[in-house]
Amino acid sequence: MTTHAGPRTTAPGALARCRASVEPALRAAVASLHPQPRRMASFSLGWCDADGTPSTGSGGKGVRQALAVLATEAVGAPAELAVPAAVAVELIHTFSLVHDDIMDGDERRRHRDTVWKAFGTGPAVLTGDALFALGVRTLAVAGGEHGATAVCRLAETLGDLVHGQADDLLFETRPWTGPGAVGLADYRAMADRKTGALLGCAMALGPVLAGAAPPVVGALSEAGRQLGLAFQVVDDLLGIWGDPQATGKPVHSDLHRRKKTLPVLAAMALDEKAAERLGRLLGSPGPLSTTDAERAAAIVEGAGGRDFALEDARRQVAAARDCLTAMPLEESATREIVALSEYFLDRQL
Amino acid sequence: MTTHAGPRTTAPGALARCRASVEPALRAAVASLHPQPRRMASFSLGWCDADGTPSTGSGGKGVRQALAVLATEAVGAPAELAVPAAVAVELIHTFSLVHDDIMDGDERRRHRDTVWKAFGTGPAVLTGDALFALGVRTLAVAGGEHGATAVCRLAETLGDLVHGQADDLLFETRPWTGPGAVGLADYRAMADRKTGALLGCAMALGPVLAGAAPPVVGALSEAGRQLGLAFQVVDDLLGIWGDPQATGKPVHSDLHRRKKTLPVLAAMALDEKAAERLGRLLGSPGPLSTTDAERAAAIVEGAGGRDFALEDARRQVAAARDCLTAMPLEESATREIVALSEYFLDRQL
Repeated sequence: MTTHAGPRTTAPGALARCRASVEPALRAAVASLHPQPRRMASFSLGWCDADGTPSTGSGGKGVRQALAVLATEAVGAPAELAVPAAVAVELIHTFSLVHDDIMDGDERRRHRDTVWKAFGTGPAVLTGDALFALGVRTLAVAGGEHGATAVCRLAETLGDLVHGQADDLLFETRPWTGPGAVGLADYRAMADRKTGALLGCAMALGPVLAGAAPPVVGALSEAGRQLGLAFQVVDDLLGIWGDPQATGKPVHSDLHRRKKTLPVLAAMALDEKAAERLGRLLGSPGPLSTTDAERAAAIVEGAGGRDFALEDARRQVAAARDCLTAMPLEESATREIVALSEYFLDRQL
Repeated sequence: MTTHAGPRTTAPGALARCRASVEPALRAAVASLHPQPRRMASFSLGWCDADGTPSTGSGGKGVRQALAVLATEAVGAPAELAVPAAVAVELIHTFSLVHDDIMDGDERRRHRDTVWKAFGTGPAVLTGDALFALGVRTLAVAGGEHGATAVCRLAETLGDLVHGQADDLLFETRPWTGPGAVGLADYRAMADRKTGALLGCAMALGPVLAGAAPPVVGALSEAGRQLGLAFQVVDDLLGIWGDPQATGKPVHSDLHRRKKTLPVLAAMALDEKAAERLGRLLGSPGPLSTTDAERAAAIVEGAGGRDFALEDARRQVAAARDCLTAMPLEESATREIVALSEYFLDRQL
């Protein structure tokens, strides 16, 4: 079996096809909410403006729902079977964005105000809770012979998400250097829970519902985790060097926020002198000037942090592909998963 | 079969006995959390002060865990079988308190700062999320033949909780009089979701796990809903006439917060003149003076709002008892449920 990706253009096609199978059920689920959280949930999903006017183009890329569908097709099951899993995972992902934006104080996401910024903190808490509850409910009521196993897996993932977010928040208070400093291993453990777990869950749930063999579910889950880690690294790279036009965030935004992301931590691990200079720049109190942010970005790049992170993401995408090729999976779906992975990796290249 | 309560002293005894079967598992579940949310969750459960020093006496009454255990014993199953259900329900209840306090801006609960007041809003959001995820996980991993049915019921309840809270928040922006005013039916629908649903779920989950017959589960669930409504009314009465020493809240606190609670809405429905005066007093902008709050309390009482609410709670407790007597249940556990109900009703008498 070959798993080389077909033409690159298959990735947007796969995203669109999967979205078409999932979105009606996702919209129906959100429509069942109380009108207030429904409107804010629709806003957070990019379906309307803050005043309720329908809109398009501000939603997420739908990578989780796509991977849920493709993994299910990869085990030979129909896309329909993946729908409750895909809806649950998209809802839980959106919940985590809405609540994380409150905790992180982030005011902008996808070129728009975040939910708490647009509607207030209390309503944003409620919106996240509504999405969380709806995600659990969607999967729980899907039922079927393997429903309970799927719900268990989602429940474990919810614990991972919270644990990862708690770690990430704690990173802010931990020092850049010296005892208690955040190291690469700390970063990886955090990212595995905060981002890897839900992608792993996305690729496992449909196959679980389809009754796929445990080693196959395990391989798909691991592939999802690796892709989650890779996407997190790409986000980290975009958070420093991303084009504000594309990311909807200011240039060097993660440096201004003094976030302990992989490129910076890698630079500090690779180069003692860079570590000292970055620790001084990013560890100082008060706002970071534009010049200092530029300087920090240059130090990270000079010390090899950017290349290290990029290599990391490439290795994780390759590891995901290895997980897939080790198993007897449907060729076409597998090819689309690989194409998707490379497409997202290319966002940064 | 007789369901008259035994001596009143059985209620604290029942609470203590049920707590003893549930608390070790509840503590073990919370101990599995990330250290940061673990400490805040322990604080919210009354197990420690904000600085982590162990404490006692600030926890809830544990009525939900007690009803979960007693309902399970009432269908002839052992208390142990109820434990994951009881833990899940206590965790979900605590989650809703932590997040509702953020949304309502409440600074005090049980004579202490609320979680957001003690630790900040972001950490309180995280704590609620951690409790929510842990509650779902605890029930999901309990498994068993009827585990999936139990998880479904909890998931539906989560949706009810969010819906009820959304209604309650919306009440704040709705007028006291005229078109769009909050009526008694609106109040009951809100309270049924916000408080009734979780009590109903508490009394249903253990019996579901024990494989009790659907009519029995239905009767126990309905009994729990009725008790939930009764407890909400008692809370409403305490919110106006409760002793600050006992409630840990200022006198007339719900009037100062201009909350649309049952006694006030009943007074307005019963007496047109009172409705007009209350609408003027409570509908005015700016803070309510002590004199105005006293005046409003007197108008509510004079118009019969206090008696109406009390009668409502009594009727709901009687309806709960009727649900129980209609079914072939274990006598001793049923007697304890009735004793508990009357004990909580008496808090207000």
